[in-house]
Amino acid sequence: MSKTGVWIVGARGNVATTAIVGARAIAHGEADTTGMVTAREPCSRLDLPSVERLIFGGHDIRRTSVLETARTLSENGIPSRETVDAVREDLEAVDERIEVGTAVNCGNAVTDLADETLREPSVEDVVEQIRSDYRSFARENDLDRIVVVNAASSEPPLSNPERYDTLSAFEGAMADDDSDLPASSLYAYAALVDGRPYVNFTPSTGSALGGLVELADKNGVPHMGRDAKTGETLVKSALAPMFASRNLRVRSWEGHNILGNADGEVLEDEENEAGKLETKGGVLEGILDGDFHNRVRIDYAPPLADWKTAWDDIRFDGFLGTRMKMQFTWEGSDSALAAPLVLDLVRLVAFADERGESGLQPQLASFFKQPLGVDEHDLSLQFDRLREYANSHTGE
Amino acid sequence: MSKTGVWIVGARGNVATTAIVGARAIAHGEADTTGMVTAREPCSRLDLPSVERLIFGGHDIRRTSVLETARTLSENGIPSRETVDAVREDLEAVDERIEVGTAVNCGNAVTDLADETLREPSVEDVVEQIRSDYRSFARENDLDRIVVVNAASSEPPLSNPERYDTLSAFEGAMADDDSDLPASSLYAYAALVDGRPYVNFTPSTGSALGGLVELADKNGVPHMGRDAKTGETLVKSALAPMFASRNLRVRSWEGHNILGNADGEVLEDEENEAGKLETKGGVLEGILDGDFHNRVRIDYAPPLADWKTAWDDIRFDGFLGTRMKMQFTWEGSDSALAAPLVLDLVRLVAFADERGESGLQPQLASFFKQPLGVDEHDLSLQFDRLREYANSHTGE
Amino acid sequence: MSKTGVWIVGARGNVATTAIVGARAIAHGEADTTGMVTAREPCSRLDLPSVERLIFGGHDIRRTSVLETARTLSENGIPSRETVDAVREDLEAVDERIEVGTAVNCGNAVTDLADETLREPSVEDVVEQIRSDYRSFARENDLDRIVVVNAASSEPPLSNPERYDTLSAFEGAMADDDSDLPASSLYAYAALVDGRPYVNFTPSTGSALGGLVELADKNGVPHMGRDAKTGETLVKSALAPMFASRNLRVRSWEGHNILGNADGEVLEDEENEAGKLETKGGVLEGILDGDFHNRVRIDYAPPLADWKTAWDDIRFDGFLGTRMKMQFTWEGSDSALAAPLVLDLVRLVAFADERGESGLQPQLASFFKQPLGVDEHDLSLQFDRLREYANSHTGE
Amino acid sequence: MSKTGVWIVGARGNVATTAIVGARAIAHGEADTTGMVTAREPCSRLDLPSVERLIFGGHDIRRTSVLETARTLSENGIPSRETVDAVREDLEAVDERIEVGTAVNCGNAVTDLADETLREPSVEDVVEQIRSDYRSFARENDLDRIVVVNAASSEPPLSNPERYDTLSAFEGAMADDDSDLPASSLYAYAALVDGRPYVNFTPSTGSALGGLVELADKNGVPHMGRDAKTGETLVKSALAPMFASRNLRVRSWEGHNILGNADGEVLEDEENEAGKLETKGGVLEGILDGDFHNRVRIDYAPPLADWKTAWDDIRFDGFLGTRMKMQFTWEGSDSALAAPLVLDLVRLVAFADERGESGLQPQLASFFKQPLGVDEHDLSLQFDRLREYANSHTGE
Ligand SMILES: NC(=O)c1ccc[n+]([C@@H]2O[C@H](COP(=O)([O-])OP(=O)(O)OC[C@H]3O[C@@H](n4cnc5c(N)ncnc54)[C@H](O)[C@@H]3O)[C@@H](O)[C@H]2O)c1
Ligand SMILES: NC(=O)c1ccc[n+]([C@@H]2O[C@H](COP(=O)([O-])OP(=O)(O)OC[C@H]3O[C@@H](n4cnc5c(N)ncnc54)[C@H](O)[C@@H]3O)[C@@H](O)[C@H]2O)c1
Ligand SMILES: NC(=O)c1ccc[n+]([C@@H]2O[C@H](COP(=O)([O-])OP(=O)(O)OC[C@H]3O[C@@H](n4cnc5c(N)ncnc54)[C@H](O)[C@@H]3O)[C@@H](O)[C@H]2O)c1
Ligand SMILES: NC(=O)c1ccc[n+]([C@@H]2O[C@H](COP(=O)([O-])OP(=O)(O)OC[C@H]3O[C@@H](n4cnc5c(N)ncnc54)[C@H](O)[C@@H]3O)[C@@H](O)[C@H]2O)c1
Ligand code: NA
Ligand code: NA
Repeated sequence: MSKTGVWIVGARGNVATTAIVGARAIAHGEADTTGMVTAREPCSRLDLPSVERLIFGGHDIRRTSVLETARTLSENGIPSRETVDAVREDLEAVDERIEVGTAVNCGNAVTDLADETLREPSVEDVVEQIRSDYRSFARENDLDRIVVVNAASSEPPLSNPERYDTLSAFEGAMADDDSDLPASSLYAYAALVDGRPYVNFTPSTGSALGGLVELADKNGVPHMGRDAKTGETLVKSALAPMFASRNLRVRSWEGHNILGNADGEVLEDEENEAGKLETKGGVLEGILDGDFHNRVRIDYAPPLADWKTAWDDIRFDGFLGTRMKMQFTWEGSDSALAAPLVLDLVRLVAFADERGESGLQPQLASFFKQPLGVDEHDLSLQFDRLREYANSHTGE
Repeated sequence: MSKTGVWIVGARGNVATTAIVGARAIAHGEADTTGMVTAREPCSRLDLPSVERLIFGGHDIRRTSVLETARTLSENGIPSRETVDAVREDLEAVDERIEVGTAVNCGNAVTDLADETLREPSVEDVVEQIRSDYRSFARENDLDRIVVVNAASSEPPLSNPERYDTLSAFEGAMADDDSDLPASSLYAYAALVDGRPYVNFTPSTGSALGGLVELADKNGVPHMGRDAKTGETLVKSALAPMFASRNLRVRSWEGHNILGNADGEVLEDEENEAGKLETKGGVLEGILDGDFHNRVRIDYAPPLADWKTAWDDIRFDGFLGTRMKMQFTWEGSDSALAAPLVLDLVRLVAFADERGESGLQPQLASFFKQPLGVDEHDLSLQFDRLREYANSHTGE
Repeated sequence: MSKTGVWIVGARGNVATTAIVGARAIAHGEADTTGMVTAREPCSRLDLPSVERLIFGGHDIRRTSVLETARTLSENGIPSRETVDAVREDLEAVDERIEVGTAVNCGNAVTDLADETLREPSVEDVVEQIRSDYRSFARENDLDRIVVVNAASSEPPLSNPERYDTLSAFEGAMADDDSDLPASSLYAYAALVDGRPYVNFTPSTGSALGGLVELADKNGVPHMGRDAKTGETLVKSALAPMFASRNLRVRSWEGHNILGNADGEVLEDEENEAGKLETKGGVLEGILDGDFHNRVRIDYAPPLADWKTAWDDIRFDGFLGTRMKMQFTWEGSDSALAAPLVLDLVRLVAFADERGESGLQPQLASFFKQPLGVDEHDLSLQFDRLREYANSHTGE
Repeated sequence: MSKTGVWIVGARGNVATTAIVGARAIAHGEADTTGMVTAREPCSRLDLPSVERLIFGGHDIRRTSVLETARTLSENGIPSRETVDAVREDLEAVDERIEVGTAVNCGNAVTDLADETLREPSVEDVVEQIRSDYRSFARENDLDRIVVVNAASSEPPLSNPERYDTLSAFEGAMADDDSDLPASSLYAYAALVDGRPYVNFTPSTGSALGGLVELADKNGVPHMGRDAKTGETLVKSALAPMFASRNLRVRSWEGHNILGNADGEVLEDEENEAGKLETKGGVLEGILDGDFHNRVRIDYAPPLADWKTAWDDIRFDGFLGTRMKMQFTWEGSDSALAAPLVLDLVRLVAFADERGESGLQPQLASFFKQPLGVDEHDLSLQFDRLREYANSHTGE
């Protein structure tokens, strides 16, 4: 396949760094592809861009290098010190390709992190600078295609998103220097306007606005989001269909998450947490009937570092009014769960783009907490859709 | 629809009693249909025999009445005392329709329970007696159709079941008074030979023998089994596909069950436990790739009574060799989980019979730990098959 | 022993009602004494007032009768319907002995509950009315002694409690009609000033003020508090000493509680929660060395009703920097855990009073989250102190 | 203090190796003393032999070197590779001081492990050889004292141990070349007969026989055992007193352990497991009143390696017959939990020996699942005894 670039917004963050380290470790034969959906049936049958040949760049607002992020992660075991050493030079090269981004409307928790942000005179100038960054990356690395992935910190939710429901409303707002436009949507606009595929890995707004969906359709460019489904919510989307299909009535589903990384620190800020809880909570509502107590908590516990523990307590009624329950704990490295999906999504969106498939990509629903344009939240059925997609492309 | 009888082998056991109490409580407006798959989309659209009009009878080998079983269960809260009182007379009437059964090859744990068993001179005479019991039940209650359901205690596994791979081998063995033929298969034969639909709710052999599959096909009668999927295994079949689809490598899945009812007491006997563990273990192997440590324990803890607690510990590897884990506990009333499925299966098999659908019924795979003739173990995909079946019958 | 009355502030609440139902059920031979510390070694050797002969009365601010509270509790199984029926008349008699109380400084969550509260012109008049209520209860029931127990909803914490550090400061504030004095301390003052023993079962201020400690000493009356240790905190005080004595370094102890009763609803209010979290958090600090992440969450989940589930996640370091962990869940009926302790404390404080033991009662430390005047938080060592106390009174 | 040698039976096992690595890492400043009881109040006030100066030797029956064991452990993270590298030479030196031991009556699981065992003509010759090994170790390393610690694989339980209730019975059996005498008791005899302090870290018989207790008293030598209390049982001894003191009636306590190390493999053998379960089960019986279901399971799950997960499920009744429950999981590195206790016990037994304190050492009860000569199983009270002991030696 053609030469593919990956532009990550939030390139020095944990998810981005782990994805980059992983791709390069695979290239050097230092890691295998466990955890990558595309490395296994049915996607392994597709002619996807190879992981080994992906070229990485991106935006960030902190100066910490990707290598430093990798070393900090390594103190908690993932990636191992050996792996980081093996890809050290590659990481240094990626760092050269990281530009300063914008943090407009990202909330205080994020601006507190920032060492430097784009300070152009107007929204339009900011967008112009981002487009130029994408362009230079593509040109300097001789890329046939770049996929833009948003893996930056979660933004606070945007109020009244329907005001940007049409492309003309969105572009009008840009022209008016509307101070409410969130950074994630500016990055998305800058990609889609030049026909660059876009993936929103986060709960931030990104390309979910009506106006940007319209733009992607108009320009014939594939995009998808929102908020990758990695831990507790992934489990919910596997488990909840069981209660529904057995007609067991869930009365309370309480989820409590503790995590200790920077993402946890940002989410500790109530503003930013709001966005996350919105995308997490919806999965159950989309699967289960009736009313029930549904709460998700996220607590920041520094000693856990990048390890996230979710504890869920589920109460349900069965036959003859029997009260029963299920509880689970899930303990994973947040970044190790998320990173391979970044690579998967890049490969699958690049594949779609190559084949001229544009607009939202419903076959990718299984990757997201809030799959744009898709109502199905049952993980197996979502994944079945990916299977059908792969089959249709391999003539099975 | 036509008048349907339900003949339960093991009619005085917990599962049978709870199913009977539940059906009658629904008939009296004392309970709703929570927990019944057929009471909800997609099956609720089918023209199934009504729960309220089902007539119950069966075989057992203990003299304890159904009412006594119900009262004992009630001490642990399910069904409530009020519910038992409301259906008392109905239960007494059912007891009149329970006949003495055979316990041949059921293991010592079962024969220790028996107050009385069929003691006919030969296997053929035993089968003749069972056929005659079915016939009288149908005639005396003026039934259009009876469905035979095996809900008796688990038998020890049958060695070399392939020796009964053809109908002629099976019938030859009966003629030779073969002392290895298990009770469950005699009950199944007696049903199928007279065109009566059959469901095997247990891990026992039942209609799984090649010879009986042949008989069902020949006589155009629907049947299905084996071992209803209610608790831990149900959860496994919902969860394991998540690991598979995400290419997360499971290294160890250890399940520990504690339960305090008679089923637990019989399973405490290693002979009988063997059969159960066989059907439970296979689900994971059918879903997950590769080798992994896979163990299921069942411990008998009397103070838990009919409440079963499962604890599962799952270790898996993700991206960059990250070791992660998930644990869950599941606490349910075993009988309350199983009983509504008895009613569901009776209704769905009667429906199939009415429409002339014969042989194994793959649309029912989601109900079983070891769905005969079906390789798919992913609960959602199994259930999707039931949805497609319902759609095909309602023209959607 | 002499005739003992129990005056409960919050008499129509869950804890009070369960204590009253339990005492009366024991009197009628309908319940045993499981869960009562005083029914077992070492306290069973003491000559305590008998449970059967305790007379109950109290204050409340809601009109719901004790019987209604008992019936609502009964819907969740504890106490059983049979038990409530057996003590119905006794509960009706108790209701006759419940007077309207004050809700001053109890926060909005409490005042929203109130049907009626004392509306005397001044603080001193309120106290006068409370003293008169206590007096009438004693006289009309011909009691030798009454013990006042605070089991009312938790108040928000009092700011700058040190301003009431002396009796004269406290009485001066009363004379000045100080609008900050919390209800719980007015109830406590009214008891102690007339030599009536007092127990603070809640996290509210009660008798913890320096001025009231002085009053109790001056009047030679025993009192103790604060916040009964029933669930998660009880477990903490049993477990944490293990980490300390083994020199295992706890790095994070995160506790998450879900509960569905009225107490949970009041605690959902952040104001009132603050008081509770303060008394809960301190136990660990009192046992473990060093700094660690220590957080307690309380979430209101109505479907759980009176059942509280605590989930605790503990991370600790061991030899050679090994990171290890422990998790527990605790599921109990909040009221069933608390109620017997009300009876225990009444009996033990009455015993002390009879023997002229006055002031704080350190032998009762094991009952409280924040034992006034005691630094020891290790449950076993606290209980050992009760054992020594009993021994000293029985000559062992 | 004087120069102390540590002779470990099972010196190439996980516990021994981790203890040795730890002591040497502390000596090199590569590790701190977290997890060592003697490094903290109250024992830190005692004048104990310093960890840095302990000299190690021992018996084993496998040829794998201590360094190899350390490297295998290191693959699961404990000790770290850096730590092993830092003490590599020290470990090689220890290996020079390891002699071939006897495996008589250790069961097949152990003899299957053995590369080489003592094959002397008679029991007395075996004992003679062991005494000579101890002697050479002391002489060659110029030691003032050696403490013998049994950390070898668990033996199957000895039947009718009362036949060795006197020293003359034991010595008579040796003289008769009694083929039932277990290896652990031969090692213990060889120590005690020459006045060498002895610690039995395992569930094997060791010095628990009446005849050996007599010998220790006669020779004025301190000894203690049996089966170090590290994980699940440690937690039980902290938690169970809570139920007892609150008069909560435990009805079922089911413990399920999964572990993946060699100890697990040996315990998988039912013969050897029997011994372990015996010492584990007794703790609860020693603390809780009444009858209850009490079961402990140990399952071997290789992927867990040296990490042990215990899951305990506890059901108890409270006030008014309320059924409640607690569950916990405990996840620790078995060896990291055990190893520091080896060092603690050596230091404390050497201290006692130096002060002429002989026979069983009840102040060490908190270290053992089955503390010889002590009935108290409450961890806090056991530890309080150690505190009193320390106080008595420091004049507090
Ligand atoms: N880890 C997971 O399992 C997971 C799952 C789903 C979604 N996510 C989402 O992925 C995102 C990244 O998570 P993470 O753990 O890597 O967080 P992180 O805090 O480690 O990384 C975020 C990075 O984004 C940068 N950043 C913030 N705002 C920016 C902006 N406006 N422009 C450019 N860079 C910006 C930060 O400087 C930081 O380097 C979060 O939004 C998170 O919610 C993570
Ligand atoms: N409860 C569940 O969740 C569940 C799930 C799947 C399968 N099952 C299976 O259902 C069966 C019944 O479970 P249960 O809890 O009701 O057990 P149970 O012990 O309460 O009832 C079994 C009944 O079968 C009777 N019986 C035994 N052998 C018989 C024979 N040969 N002929 C006639 N009657 C016989 C017994 O006397 C008893 O009344 C078991 O095989 C169990 O493994 C139960
Ligand atoms: N249940 C437990 O395990 C437990 C343990 C420790 C402490 N506590 C404390 O015990 C108290 C009672 O708990 P509960 O579950 O019974 O709560 P509840 O809400 O059921 O009962 C509280 C009662 O107090 C009454 N009340 C409130 N303010 C009052 C006032 N100023 N004067 C008189 N009455 C007043 C309310 O009307 C209500 O009837 C709470 O403070 C709780 O924190 C409970
Ligand atoms: N790890 C813990 O938490 C813990 C706690 C309490 C008790 N223990 C006990 O400590 C002992 C050691 O545990 P481990 O994990 O180190 O086991 P391990 O299997 O790693 O080590 C045991 C060592 O003993 C050797 N051995 C066996 N029989 C011997 C004999 N007769 N003479 C000399 N050497 C012999 C083996 O070759 C092996 O090197 C076991 O008995 C275990 O039950 C361990
Ligand atoms: Na699923
Ligand atoms: Na304790």
